[in-house]
Amino acid sequence: MNPSNLLQQVAFIKEIDKLKYIQRKTRLFKSDRQENDAEHSWHLAMMTIVLAEHSDKPIDVLKVVKMVLIHDIVEIDAGDTFIYDSTKNHTNTEEELLAAKRIFGLLPKEQAEEFIAVWEEFEAGETDEAKFAKAMDRFEPLLQNTSNNGGTWAEYDVPYQQVYDKKKAIREGSTAIWNYAENLINESLEKGILKK
Amino acid sequence: MNPSNLLQQVAFIKEIDKLKYIQRKTRLFKSDRQENDAEHSWHLAMMTIVLAEHSDKPIDVLKVVKMVLIHDIVEIDAGDTFIYDSTKNHTNTEEELLAAKRIFGLLPKEQAEEFIAVWEEFEAGETDEAKFAKAMDRFEPLLQNTSNNGGTWAEYDVPYQQVYDKKKAIREGSTAIWNYAENLINESLEKGILKK
Repeated sequence: MNPSNLLQQVAFIKEIDKLKYIQRKTRLFKSDRQENDAEHSWHLAMMTIVLAEHSDKPIDVLKVVKMVLIHDIVEIDAGDTFIYDSTKNHTNTEEELLAAKRIFGLLPKEQAEEFIAVWEEFEAGETDEAKFAKAMDRFEPLLQNTSNNGGTWAEYDVPYQQVYDKKKAIREGSTAIWNYAENLINESLEKGILKK
Repeated sequence: MNPSNLLQQVAFIKEIDKLKYIQRKTRLFKSDRQENDAEHSWHLAMMTIVLAEHSDKPIDVLKVVKMVLIHDIVEIDAGDTFIYDSTKNHTNTEEELLAAKRIFGLLPKEQAEEFIAVWEEFEAGETDEAKFAKAMDRFEPLLQNTSNNGGTWAEYDVPYQQVYDKKKAIREGSTAIWNYAENLINESLEKGILKK
């Protein structure tokens, strides 16, 4: 325990308040109101602790929770990129890396390094923890869009195959959740809220 | 892993979306915009992982994170009670217990029991984990109010001693954070944004 760390940590805690102003495209369940990144991150953390039993591999749940809590913090500087926006690169952009260094860099050195490493592990999506975290990040908007009569899929004319290809990442983390998700996507096609 | 649990868990995940509509009295940092319970819970989870090193006792960080993520979910049914409202009881009300049973009761039985137990442990405030979680819950609005020229203290004429007495709970979790917090409260008195 190092009391001098506390001042840096408080500066970080104040800075990340800005995540509450970053609007996502996706809307809350059965709602017109857009979700912000802080609400989204809370929901993914809840989903992680509730759904961890469905991970195909044993996972360090605290590590996954850390990933989903911090995964969008870089958007404070870099902004939210819509997942179906084909004109922008989505991961590990130069801008996001600079954001990670600036924002996590407010923390004491060792902790800054740890948070940047956790964020990079999530972005890389290669470990079992990152795969499960990414599954959560894909699953939440699927639930939201199906509850909103298509939601952003309808709003931005996103075709079935594009949705299917993005959501397939869920399978990397959990076969059980993917089976449920795939069924929801196919049902959406049958109902006409997703189009070929 | 039990796939049949998944349907119940998805029902729970949808239900708790309502936490994003529960407004707190406290406002975001340097802002007029009120914070909602989901944003607040995310912020406490971040504070927990950032500040855990300052706990006076060794703590199970994942347990504390679970506590702060779920601690306000009962407010979906019971509503937010302002901490300085002297006309209402704040903890373990009958209404909150019914809410816990209804909302956590959407989960598979074992998980429902686990979540209710975690929430009750937080409310009781007796374990080292609950003490640290409560310290986070008191510390965030202190930082917000001091950044907002008194915030809810000014808005609702809350006197110094009442603030001091509520914030003292921070000391139960962390001497280092309490030293910082006590200093902030006393500075607020000197600056006139808190009054005797």
